[in-house]
Amino acid sequence: MTHSQRRENLSARIRAAGLDALLVSDLVNVRYLSGFTGSNAALLVFADERTPVLATDGRYRTQAAQQAPDLEIAVERACGRHLVGRAAAGGVRRLGFESHVVTVDGFDALAAEAGTTELARASGMVEALREVKDAGEVALLRLACEAADTALTDLIERGGLRPGRTEREVSRELEALMLDHGADGVSFDTIVATGANSAIPHHRPTDAVLGTGDFVKIDFGALVAGYHSDMTRTFVLGRAADWQREIYQLVAAAQRAGREALRAGANLHDVDAAARQVITDAGHGERFGHGLGHGVGLQIHEAPGINATAAGTLLAGSVVTVEPGVYLPDRGGVRIEDTLVVADETSGHAPELLTRFPKELAIL
Amino acid sequence: MTHSQRRENLSARIRAAGLDALLVSDLVNVRYLSGFTGSNAALLVFADERTPVLATDGRYRTQAAQQAPDLEIAVERACGRHLVGRAAAGGVRRLGFESHVVTVDGFDALAAEAGTTELARASGMVEALREVKDAGEVALLRLACEAADTALTDLIERGGLRPGRTEREVSRELEALMLDHGADGVSFDTIVATGANSAIPHHRPTDAVLGTGDFVKIDFGALVAGYHSDMTRTFVLGRAADWQREIYQLVAAAQRAGREALRAGANLHDVDAAARQVITDAGHGERFGHGLGHGVGLQIHEAPGINATAAGTLLAGSVVTVEPGVYLPDRGGVRIEDTLVVADETSGHAPELLTRFPKELAIL
Repeated sequence: MTHSQRRENLSARIRAAGLDALLVSDLVNVRYLSGFTGSNAALLVFADERTPVLATDGRYRTQAAQQAPDLEIAVERACGRHLVGRAAAGGVRRLGFESHVVTVDGFDALAAEAGTTELARASGMVEALREVKDAGEVALLRLACEAADTALTDLIERGGLRPGRTEREVSRELEALMLDHGADGVSFDTIVATGANSAIPHHRPTDAVLGTGDFVKIDFGALVAGYHSDMTRTFVLGRAADWQREIYQLVAAAQRAGREALRAGANLHDVDAAARQVITDAGHGERFGHGLGHGVGLQIHEAPGINATAAGTLLAGSVVTVEPGVYLPDRGGVRIEDTLVVADETSGHAPELLTRFPKELAIL
Repeated sequence: MTHSQRRENLSARIRAAGLDALLVSDLVNVRYLSGFTGSNAALLVFADERTPVLATDGRYRTQAAQQAPDLEIAVERACGRHLVGRAAAGGVRRLGFESHVVTVDGFDALAAEAGTTELARASGMVEALREVKDAGEVALLRLACEAADTALTDLIERGGLRPGRTEREVSRELEALMLDHGADGVSFDTIVATGANSAIPHHRPTDAVLGTGDFVKIDFGALVAGYHSDMTRTFVLGRAADWQREIYQLVAAAQRAGREALRAGANLHDVDAAARQVITDAGHGERFGHGLGHGVGLQIHEAPGINATAAGTLLAGSVVTVEPGVYLPDRGGVRIEDTLVVADETSGHAPELLTRFPKELAIL
């Protein structure tokens, strides 16, 4: 889908919401709709066929013209304020703004330029479009997940995961391998957590040394053309104790249940519950202190959230993670995470698995 | 300075602002005040001596206890809302909130928990503290700048900047060298821009090949314990044309003027003007489309902004960049950027240069 088609879809939603235009302030939303990747921008999209206006500052004059040649470019430091003024001057009566993004102070600055134009809350309109990925987006997510898969395979084949190395060394080698295998960058700071550190869900790599008998939990992702992959695998080094096998198999069973619950139309909290129940039934419910998953795309965390308090249903074409974990403080933890594309009904509901690295307990 | 001392300084400002407590929502501010580095948190700091409360979600239970052992930890997903409820229950009458951080929708969620507690705008209180770096912070910034300096020196000594390589290759090698020289990560995505690309102030590395006679502009930084370095150098490959020498010397002169204007008490816009005037006098004012500099610390861009519209004065102990540039579209551009510590009067006003890599025109 072209950026222009995405903007047309947004214009239809702008009209349906009874607005004359939408001020897009979130930079990821601006990128999704325009292709522009600068760090200061806002976009004014009209309900009608008028050409959208992309505002950015002088640093990005050339880049904006290159990345968004079909838009009108306004070079202004105060992007949002400028575009509210443009909207008001252009006869926009009801201008939507991203009330989940614009700060309390930022709103005042916008209001000062609005004149008689009404500023109407319009949260999540672009995020709702972004939740269902188009074919081009899925292709990029597939590439990102492949880069991560290949990097992890490569790391293990070259013996990179072995007692004696530090978490930091492993993390750095894995990140370099992702770049070797086609990533533009990393999705987020790689988590490598060994031994008791694996009980910290979002541990950052340290100089802790991998030891025989340790769990090593690795949560990482590759970035390709702005799209993020996300995968976690947990290994055991040398030999696995019974308690390690037990919680590994438990998390694996919960993860399978979560994947099997990924059906278009399912309630998000039911998907979470499908995996969580497995862990709760085993008496470890308290040790799974985070949600089951989240959407991934231009952001590493985006809609939908899949957790116990999530409202709404899973949409066909959304790309989400399934990542239950059990963390035993001071002993160790296991998380197993995949990224998958939610299928539509015609395909029998089996989600496409993008992170294909094996999930059997691997003792390295 | 310990986190506890920083919080005491904040409490004094909370009292001076006529508030009973401040809800800190910005994650960098939370880190500055507590040491906690998770991705979901808020902090309640009181005007009086009550122990601050750090709220975070279940993923970070262990990490929060490790990083902030002297705080009360509340494990709650909706951190801000929970702390507003705590404040209200604790008899806080006027609770400051970060109106430059909290979104319009977020404010509504806070207000729903406030009861009779008044939510008062309190923007930039922690950022104002952060503007003046303590000795520990300067030490970390010095380490970060050294890692970047050493990496660039190493890159050039090993012949890494030469015709035939791509922007991406150079960027990747430089980033790896920063890690080799002690960085935890990079401050931001490295800019390597060759030839006409150097005219794009914030160009991202591509497969463009460095050619003889090209300007190569490199803007990069190292991250050490959360602190960012920031430096730009521009080189010429092989041989320099007259126009290249001319704009290089112009930018170097402007940069020197900017550094010399870095005195505690100077108006920020005067510092910008000191450098800008040099470029304007040479007829290139239109080709310098960004501000002169910005603070660096726990964020790559923080207070103070040094630009034509900045209000306020430069504070002793602030750490800022000085980075004028001249960009000739489709030909090439030069930016020269240092990071410096603004000195106090007793030291004769000479700022400490943290980025020590030479600035003479280097023809490689």
